[in-house]
Amino acid sequence: MAKPKKTPRPKAETPKGFRDYFGAEVTQRAEMLRKIAAVYHRYGFDALESSGVETVEALGKFLPDVDRPNEGVFAWQEDADADKPGDWLALRYDLTAPLARVYAQHRNDLPTPYRRYAMGPVWRNEKPGPGRFRQFYQCDADTVGAPSVAADAEICAMLADCLEEVGIERGDYIVRVNNRKVLNGVMEVAGLAGDDKDAERGIVLRAIDKLDRLGPDGVRALLGEGRKDDSGDFTKGAGMSERQADVVMGFMTAKRDTGVATVARLRELVDGSAIGEQGVDELETIADLMAAAGYGADRVEIDPSVVRGLGYYTGPVFEAELTFEIKDDKGRVRNFGSVAGGGRYDDLVKRFTGQEVPATGVSIGVDRLLAALHAKGRMTGDTAGPVVVTVMDKTRMADYQAMVAELRQAGIRAEVYLGNPKNFGNQLKYADSRNSPVAVIAGGDEFETGVVQIKDLILGAKMAENATLEEWKDRPSQYQVARGDLVTKVRDILGQQD
Amino acid sequence: MAKPKKTPRPKAETPKGFRDYFGAEVTQRAEMLRKIAAVYHRYGFDALESSGVETVEALGKFLPDVDRPNEGVFAWQEDADADKPGDWLALRYDLTAPLARVYAQHRNDLPTPYRRYAMGPVWRNEKPGPGRFRQFYQCDADTVGAPSVAADAEICAMLADCLEEVGIERGDYIVRVNNRKVLNGVMEVAGLAGDDKDAERGIVLRAIDKLDRLGPDGVRALLGEGRKDDSGDFTKGAGMSERQADVVMGFMTAKRDTGVATVARLRELVDGSAIGEQGVDELETIADLMAAAGYGADRVEIDPSVVRGLGYYTGPVFEAELTFEIKDDKGRVRNFGSVAGGGRYDDLVKRFTGQEVPATGVSIGVDRLLAALHAKGRMTGDTAGPVVVTVMDKTRMADYQAMVAELRQAGIRAEVYLGNPKNFGNQLKYADSRNSPVAVIAGGDEFETGVVQIKDLILGAKMAENATLEEWKDRPSQYQVARGDLVTKVRDILGQQD
Repeated sequence: MAKPKKTPRPKAETPKGFRDYFGAEVTQRAEMLRKIAAVYHRYGFDALESSGVETVEALGKFLPDVDRPNEGVFAWQEDADADKPGDWLALRYDLTAPLARVYAQHRNDLPTPYRRYAMGPVWRNEKPGPGRFRQFYQCDADTVGAPSVAADAEICAMLADCLEEVGIERGDYIVRVNNRKVLNGVMEVAGLAGDDKDAERGIVLRAIDKLDRLGPDGVRALLGEGRKDDSGDFTKGAGMSERQADVVMGFMTAKRDTGVATVARLRELVDGSAIGEQGVDELETIADLMAAAGYGADRVEIDPSVVRGLGYYTGPVFEAELTFEIKDDKGRVRNFGSVAGGGRYDDLVKRFTGQEVPATGVSIGVDRLLAALHAKGRMTGDTAGPVVVTVMDKTRMADYQAMVAELRQAGIRAEVYLGNPKNFGNQLKYADSRNSPVAVIAGGDEFETGVVQIKDLILGAKMAENATLEEWKDRPSQYQVARGDLVTKVRDILGQQD
Repeated sequence: MAKPKKTPRPKAETPKGFRDYFGAEVTQRAEMLRKIAAVYHRYGFDALESSGVETVEALGKFLPDVDRPNEGVFAWQEDADADKPGDWLALRYDLTAPLARVYAQHRNDLPTPYRRYAMGPVWRNEKPGPGRFRQFYQCDADTVGAPSVAADAEICAMLADCLEEVGIERGDYIVRVNNRKVLNGVMEVAGLAGDDKDAERGIVLRAIDKLDRLGPDGVRALLGEGRKDDSGDFTKGAGMSERQADVVMGFMTAKRDTGVATVARLRELVDGSAIGEQGVDELETIADLMAAAGYGADRVEIDPSVVRGLGYYTGPVFEAELTFEIKDDKGRVRNFGSVAGGGRYDDLVKRFTGQEVPATGVSIGVDRLLAALHAKGRMTGDTAGPVVVTVMDKTRMADYQAMVAELRQAGIRAEVYLGNPKNFGNQLKYADSRNSPVAVIAGGDEFETGVVQIKDLILGAKMAENATLEEWKDRPSQYQVARGDLVTKVRDILGQQD
């Protein structure tokens, strides 16, 4: 017989930039999403789940290009039909673009305003890096068709409620609110009004959006003549004078001790600009609505230093920041920072229908929020392993199954050891690797006398580390009980461990 | 100024074969998955979430082909690196192929046996049809590395528990168990043993797997000379004699009134075949283990007529069927049928590691299960709309926000009307379209006297349909209460509606 040709073995690897999540990583995130969904639901938001795949045409923004169809998204072309080429499809890169498509498609059947929430994976075709993955979760709530600033205020309150619901204590977070219209007013006052200043305004918006990265000096350089970066590349600035740039920089540092004082300071800055004054009025209204609903400045505050997204949003902008300190990888103490953001945006569906529809929304970074709770030791999700019923006598499998069935019916997480039972030490090692709280042991002697041995593995491990001989005697970690008392005794031990 | 070039508007449509899910469709499924996950967890299974994207190489089965890379899967090629072509990536088509990759990749860090569950969307690049979508949910549990038939028995018990947990009552379902080894034994007895009969055995396996579609006559034809289908195409048969085919057909009708009698009948059929006898022993063991764990034949039974998947699985095969009757689209009464299936399969990771690892698992069809619960009127998920606080006086928005904040803090789903408040009729229409149980109304008079109007919309709708004038007077559907009693009164009304 000819030797069969060997096919090389496939590599067992995730694609670059993707990863697997195990056990508590999955259940803790699911539990967090469930809690956030409950808050969204309580606020009258309805669930929406669109599929991961959209047409590239409907997604927009990223257009297919024969040479490089995958710019930023994962895209592919459907097989051609008899008479026309196949559509380009792509994985969604966020939950807002699909919302626009859904609203345009179903607007006659949806309520107005339409409050919807959505949670699920999104995909980005980007260069992966440490902690940067090409699939991650988003968790959004948006109100479509409500021009009123009350819709923005509601989302700020909801964001605060979500953070508390998942375990961030009041005082450990702040929802900060800013307004793009105030910045527009500031630019008007600084002399950047008019169609001919469009390019300059664009430079200012992009500069401000980079405050986190470049710092005030970098932004200031971009407002003026321009900035040379570390690599020597020069970025042209907006060409503002010192005094003009002062006005814009003043906007970002306009925060005062009280909301009232901040609003007053912003009014000075936008004096004479109608759009600016409208923006300040909106901020003041949001502050009033928040106060009326019982959300004080300890939870939601006006802060003109929130600049992230000002280039994208058209009205109120909000960001939730965790204010507690954590230690970073290098042991340095720093603030945890932003875990959610959002704001008001126009033209959600205009590209589909030609009709302007106002919308406002928020996106919560669940993975950052999970990391924050871990950093604070407040992650309470159930990570306990199962009670393991060990197998001393292979021919007694039916008896072991009966035990485990009783435990499960009592709501106790439990399993029979299903590996090769020959080496009993392996079974205890297995229980250890499973983080099991309790092992149940029964062999010939136990079956004969109608008892079982129950081993408290948590106490056993503690005592093995610390206990004196006296303590070992006083508080054994293994008990012999009547077979009929199995469930009661296991439940007792689990209760003591909690 | 030159007229700007118009870009055509994109179509607001899902790609063919994809759909959106709204409101209760999303939450009911999420709730079902949560309940099933809780049962899986109680049985000691750990969550696993892999990403939607895998390399085509790791997925296997569907191999990339330059002309038609998308055969059955959605696949695309990564951009090339400097020195080598990009990998082919694809959306996962099930949750078992990723499990194989995960187990091969992480096997040194995973417990043995490894019990894992996974739930999430999978994608198939198939021709869409009515009720057939190209993205759908799977919800799987598998035990990897446990050769013992106790692992299969455990999964049958778990499947029964899952069905009861989501609301299928005992008596309305049955988990049926069969075994591929018994069929192998039957084929041996029928004279299809030996390497030279490989093709015939393949034909028999495929024929049996089609029993649902072709019926007994169709299968019988395929066991013999062959079968001509409706289109006139001829499928070559296995060439068995009448007597040989009788043996195979006898296997599928071997079910008797009791498990003991069925096992006895199967023993007759495989008499003389070692593999067949081993299969019957396994079925008998499963029956014994089920009985010991308290799962009677009303929940799990041996049934050789389960043929789906016999071609794929290598040992025990199981299927959960709902036994109650429903009416189909055309009003005909029929059994609801299968909602879950699974079995034992070999070689899970062999293609990666060369090492044989036994595995057994189950996949629950959550969308079919949801449809079944809807058909029986047993879908209890929360579909209630929010309490709507209407807006009579735009300048009082802060007061309305305070009301809605109180309701939400009391755990009551509620919202302020955020559309244009000018037309009050529109607000009540909105409440109606939202399925709201209660509307709260307050205008100038109410604010002056410190009261609110609370309208029971459910009772109001009922009375508008049925009530006599007397009843209208006796039981009003609108109440005036002190502002401070808002939450209490709304809670009362919601309680009465339940």
